[in-house]
Amino acid sequence: MAQGEQNLVEGNKAYAAQFTEGHLALPPSQKYAVLTCMDARIDPKGAFNIPLGAAHVIRNAGASAKDAFRSIVISQQLLGTTELLVVKHTGCGMLTFDNAAARDLTKKNKGEEAFKEVADLDFLTFPDLEQAVKDDVEWLKSHKVEEGVKITGWVYEVETGKARKVV
Amino acid sequence: MAQGEQNLVEGNKAYAAQFTEGHLALPPSQKYAVLTCMDARIDPKGAFNIPLGAAHVIRNAGASAKDAFRSIVISQQLLGTTELLVVKHTGCGMLTFDNAAARDLTKKNKGEEAFKEVADLDFLTFPDLEQAVKDDVEWLKSHKVEEGVKITGWVYEVETGKARKVV
Repeated sequence: MAQGEQNLVEGNKAYAAQFTEGHLALPPSQKYAVLTCMDARIDPKGAFNIPLGAAHVIRNAGASAKDAFRSIVISQQLLGTTELLVVKHTGCGMLTFDNAAARDLTKKNKGEEAFKEVADLDFLTFPDLEQAVKDDVEWLKSHKVEEGVKITGWVYEVETGKARKVV
Repeated sequence: MAQGEQNLVEGNKAYAAQFTEGHLALPPSQKYAVLTCMDARIDPKGAFNIPLGAAHVIRNAGASAKDAFRSIVISQQLLGTTELLVVKHTGCGMLTFDNAAARDLTKKNKGEEAFKEVADLDFLTFPDLEQAVKDDVEWLKSHKVEEGVKITGWVYEVETGKARKVV
């Protein structure tokens, strides 16, 4: 059994045995969503103090608003959230490469056929962290579908556990 | 201050004060990734027993593999993960509507201009939960770029806190 599967099988039994939240409803009780990175060092529930059932948590590489657009629209239009926190973080992998480097590495790792599968993929990397937070918030706000949604942008520091507001 | 921002500001101070994990490295220490839904009732760290720093956690509406493809490729090709758990869940919102319903609701909520912004958006809903898990795992495995990655599919029950393997 691989490590992730083993963690799940071993830990879920204890989690389910103590579980008392089966009554929670589908729509987030506190009507907000958090968009953050998939980075392994981020614990959104703990670091951003999100009660179970309170908020959608969307995560992708770099906390990209463009990549998360489908989920954001569903969160707001179908499930009634009216606030969105965009939280990128220090030490993000998306600061360390670009499309060409990602495609080349895929070719080296997996060969020509795999390379073709990612040849048109935009990896949505960014060179500047705070600017990327501002850009994503601005991009979202430029959409009519975001009218009336309170959108803020943040940086989480993986070195200190601290989050600070950018915009 | 809106609710989500208030939660973060109030809770992050205590989290940072007790934080001792600033040494963790960027690549996931246990070399795996979990793809699950943004649903507010899911606590991946607790329910799937993921140690901080061990695994990428990707979340979107419905735990869609297609929507997560960019993040999955980055996790594996750039950051060395070799295992992926796809975890969808009971009571998922994606079982309850389709593209036409989502677009119509956006029009009703936000008007004609907002409707245009989502007119071409595929909401990636699904009518059958277990079939959707199987389909996503199969879709991933059909890619050369996924060769050598151990992919499993799961259902998490929001009513009981239990996770079970589907494929």
